[in-house]
Amino acid sequence: MQPDPFATEFEGKRVLVTGGLGFIGSNLALRLVDLGAHVVLVDSLIPEYGGNLFNVAGILDKVTINISDVRDPHSFRYLVRGQEILFNLAGQTSHMDSMADPFTDLEINCRAQLAILESCRQFNPSIRVIFASTRQLYGRPDYLPVDEKHPLRPVDVNGINKLAGEWYHLLYSTVHGVRSTNLRLTNTYGPRMRIKDARQTFVGIWIRRILEGLPFEVWGGDQLRDFTYVDDCVDALLRAAITDEAIGMAINLGGDGVVSLRELAETLTGVAGGGEYTVREFPSDYKAIDIGDYHSDWSLARRVLGWEPRMALRDGLRATLEYFRDNRQHYL
Amino acid sequence: MQPDPFATEFEGKRVLVTGGLGFIGSNLALRLVDLGAHVVLVDSLIPEYGGNLFNVAGILDKVTINISDVRDPHSFRYLVRGQEILFNLAGQTSHMDSMADPFTDLEINCRAQLAILESCRQFNPSIRVIFASTRQLYGRPDYLPVDEKHPLRPVDVNGINKLAGEWYHLLYSTVHGVRSTNLRLTNTYGPRMRIKDARQTFVGIWIRRILEGLPFEVWGGDQLRDFTYVDDCVDALLRAAITDEAIGMAINLGGDGVVSLRELAETLTGVAGGGEYTVREFPSDYKAIDIGDYHSDWSLARRVLGWEPRMALRDGLRATLEYFRDNRQHYL
Repeated sequence: MQPDPFATEFEGKRVLVTGGLGFIGSNLALRLVDLGAHVVLVDSLIPEYGGNLFNVAGILDKVTINISDVRDPHSFRYLVRGQEILFNLAGQTSHMDSMADPFTDLEINCRAQLAILESCRQFNPSIRVIFASTRQLYGRPDYLPVDEKHPLRPVDVNGINKLAGEWYHLLYSTVHGVRSTNLRLTNTYGPRMRIKDARQTFVGIWIRRILEGLPFEVWGGDQLRDFTYVDDCVDALLRAAITDEAIGMAINLGGDGVVSLRELAETLTGVAGGGEYTVREFPSDYKAIDIGDYHSDWSLARRVLGWEPRMALRDGLRATLEYFRDNRQHYL
Repeated sequence: MQPDPFATEFEGKRVLVTGGLGFIGSNLALRLVDLGAHVVLVDSLIPEYGGNLFNVAGILDKVTINISDVRDPHSFRYLVRGQEILFNLAGQTSHMDSMADPFTDLEINCRAQLAILESCRQFNPSIRVIFASTRQLYGRPDYLPVDEKHPLRPVDVNGINKLAGEWYHLLYSTVHGVRSTNLRLTNTYGPRMRIKDARQTFVGIWIRRILEGLPFEVWGGDQLRDFTYVDDCVDALLRAAITDEAIGMAINLGGDGVVSLRELAETLTGVAGGGEYTVREFPSDYKAIDIGDYHSDWSLARRVLGWEPRMALRDGLRATLEYFRDNRQHYL
């Protein structure tokens, strides 16, 4: 087994996590606590978003939880002070919600990001910031796999706003010295994700339906996607935070392979030991903003962060299903 | 002389212009009135921005003036109804102001644009929209002249927000059928521009200082720029509005040549028959967001719109100076 690159890097470090009770934030928090960091988790616990107190049930006495919304600029002026690292993960993630209510998406993914960065600039400019960006910035790929040089051409309001949010981070890094790195996440899955509906990821609703013994719907079916297991995502976040070379960069994450949605459904029902699904046409409002096939070239992450995805899709899906079978009552 | 392509195209057309009392908006209004359009000019008349009632002094009885701010979503739900064309020109234009007060820039250049487009979608989806975008989206050029395929990489808050604003227009065109065209303007100059300070263009403050018999400052001096005379810009806006091929496109404007800022200062003082200037280093906060050399490849505008700049820089500067010599009391 390889030595843990984080063995001492986070010990005693003061770390702030926005979206800290959400899917990725809580998994990150578990790891940070394990590494000896002093962790403050900020979350709004808005029911439609990813925050869930149960996500951190095992570390409640080892973290500080601060309930506030990233749209509240006042709390952040206080919260950023004295922190050494900010993992800035809070976001509105639903593409469809962004089309139906573009202003909420703008407030969270643009304006709040600017406010957080302004708080850092004014009250803690030496903080290190890692921002959770998204492959949605690329829109419909011109080529596959998509590397960071691919044109940015978002196809929905969420993608446009996340792109502005990403660029604020780069700008504040370049102009104001608030050292930031943007990780462009692709589909991330694993324990503690939202499975109530498809707001965070469609894999969530698939798992819910399997747990409930109900068939799920695969829309389209032929689109290619890559998937990052949440532990691998956490690993990338941690690596970025201790890699100076990554400052001012935007870096893709990716998965251990590429599958069609139909293959994903097959694999998932396979490891679940059953489960039915139907393949259907995209609803027209989804089709208008669909990006077609996507998978990442994550060689930059390997070069700069020494990162690679370690969890095989099948194993990751199995672990995810196991988690939710044991804890379903906290997620439905 | 070529036949006027707009001879009858705008006659009786109902046209809404945001930023209608500003520099480009008022010049556009003059032309639209001349072409027989029914024109509603919307402007906030915020003192720091470009609006100036004197700009439309000659057509006050031929246009409808509606004082409201694009950040007010309520008025737009009414104002867009029944209009056939929207020239969406209102914006926060100062790069430095966008860095000092990023939220105001965001409210005007992002949120208000989204609100205007939402109003169109809900209350007048068949309206034709022309959006005044900017070369600031490209950031520091990788190559010259800059065409529309150049990577988008804005270097200040204004550039990021204008880019989001542009993309909202493309998105609403593609997904919601609100037919839009984005024109990416470079430095535009001419009668009715703001000369009180450098908020709209540094050429403004140069002209003010010449009119006052005071020396002006040239920062840097070697940077290359192109300049569009406002009548040429108006010509492009009108052409875009009647060109279906331009729907969903972003198109560069440009100038009749390329000059360094030092050469521009020479030309300006030459046609002014005098005027002193000093060349100095960039102030450090400006330097951080300077884009270096820039000039446009506007061949797409020629191909799609049949557009080309007609006014030579020297003649345009002469006409501009003449205008402000006659009307300086309304602009200082």
